[in-house]
Amino acid sequence: MDPQIEHKIRDSFARQSLMQTFGAQIQFLDRGHVHITAPLTPQVLQQHGFGHAGLTFAIGDSAAGYAALTEYDPQTEVLTAEMKINLLAPASGNTLIAKGRIIKTGRRLSVVAADVFAVQNNAETLIAVLQGTMVPVSG
Amino acid sequence: MDPQIEHKIRDSFARQSLMQTFGAQIQFLDRGHVHITAPLTPQVLQQHGFGHAGLTFAIGDSAAGYAALTEYDPQTEVLTAEMKINLLAPASGNTLIAKGRIIKTGRRLSVVAADVFAVQNNAETLIAVLQGTMVPVSG
Amino acid sequence: MDPQIEHKIRDSFARQSLMQTFGAQIQFLDRGHVHITAPLTPQVLQQHGFGHAGLTFAIGDSAAGYAALTEYDPQTEVLTAEMKINLLAPASGNTLIAKGRIIKTGRRLSVVAADVFAVQNNAETLIAVLQGTMVPVSG
Amino acid sequence: MDPQIEHKIRDSFARQSLMQTFGAQIQFLDRGHVHITAPLTPQVLQQHGFGHAGLTFAIGDSAAGYAALTEYDPQTEVLTAEMKINLLAPASGNTLIAKGRIIKTGRRLSVVAADVFAVQNNAETLIAVLQGTMVPVSG
Repeated sequence: MDPQIEHKIRDSFARQSLMQTFGAQIQFLDRGHVHITAPLTPQVLQQHGFGHAGLTFAIGDSAAGYAALTEYDPQTEVLTAEMKINLLAPASGNTLIAKGRIIKTGRRLSVVAADVFAVQNNAETLIAVLQGTMVPVSG
Repeated sequence: MDPQIEHKIRDSFARQSLMQTFGAQIQFLDRGHVHITAPLTPQVLQQHGFGHAGLTFAIGDSAAGYAALTEYDPQTEVLTAEMKINLLAPASGNTLIAKGRIIKTGRRLSVVAADVFAVQNNAETLIAVLQGTMVPVSG
Repeated sequence: MDPQIEHKIRDSFARQSLMQTFGAQIQFLDRGHVHITAPLTPQVLQQHGFGHAGLTFAIGDSAAGYAALTEYDPQTEVLTAEMKINLLAPASGNTLIAKGRIIKTGRRLSVVAADVFAVQNNAETLIAVLQGTMVPVSG
Repeated sequence: MDPQIEHKIRDSFARQSLMQTFGAQIQFLDRGHVHITAPLTPQVLQQHGFGHAGLTFAIGDSAAGYAALTEYDPQTEVLTAEMKINLLAPASGNTLIAKGRIIKTGRRLSVVAADVFAVQNNAETLIAVLQGTMVPVSG
């Protein structure tokens, strides 16, 4: 993968203070595929003690957006136009991992997806699927 | 509005640690309508310094879910089955406010919506619209 | 409303053969608002004898798209980038009416919505809500 | 695959008059996977002469719904609660094929997806992706 693009993505991620607040990290980064993890700490839960859908959404959206970004030139950035999430199971475990991927890259729009898994004892359970649209803009 | 239901909602909200982490508050609560605010602090931003879509989603989803909850009996809880967000403008200002409402309450499912506004100098700008499905479950 | 734009919309609608197949008509057309009706004939039903979700979607999407089109110059066309539909009740009655409107017009994208009602004996029942994104393109 | 369920699906499909109007057919049917085809006839087009999004949606939704149905007992039916479609390319060719699949089956809800392809000279082009929710109901 183009080192300029990788640098741009890691730099952009580092400037997302919400990702810092969540303790999120880029775990994997390749052309068309970005994985982001976040620990299930006591600070990010919903009322039943599971991970909050806002956390699941946030890392899923970021993973999908950075996946899209791998396909554009280093001067381009992407913005989320819309994103839909279906929640499948409670976010229960030690960590979440969001695996973003591209469905179709276009000049005007990019269609992306992400699967989010809860990880416990190295076993991954699919807890959410996201499908959405990114808009490339000149940086 | 039924004081038992109001109590249940305020108690549930207080147990959502992510809402505490965000400094979010219930600003308005009535049958079918719940408003949640959150300050745009340096901890919740994306890479360009605007509020993160994860924050916008989290308070929009919560406002919509609690709006649905006002229509069920006090023993029922709701879970988000799915939620779609269209982002309209950057989250720029001092505070966000999410205004949740019910589109249709049903025995099996409730369809809900939320509008999220950025507030600066008392002026509200619509930054996102959400539409989704809540599932009532026995508490 | 600009007569050039009204003419463009009516002409575009007349060229949609699926709308002809459905017997659909533009019932109302003004800046930001387009209503499309279609009769519930024996040719457009699902397995339980109600109107098919494909019909509901088709007229909702068209109404929302033409609503968006009222805001652009006469040389521009719009394409649906994505659309989400929540179905609320069976499509039961004589006619469906889809009422499209604009949530936000932008240079790159337009966010739109539509409510679809089933009409029986002049009473309208809300059966579906749509929220989506249109892309303006040079004609 | 259970012959009772296969019979139920084929019978249900035969009763969908919109599928007849479209000349749609079940091309493949197995546990968790249903493919539906429809020809791109002059009756189902949009204003630029491509297949209408209403057709793409209708067969995608049906393929996804019947995929869900393969996992329930023969007395159960499913209804679409919500469906989101991202359109990727014009529906250009001789035929469309929608390939529905299950993401997660549940007692209350089933989350499903479909990919829709345009077929020309035996080459398939992905034109749309759908993600949605089905509700099982007693028949």
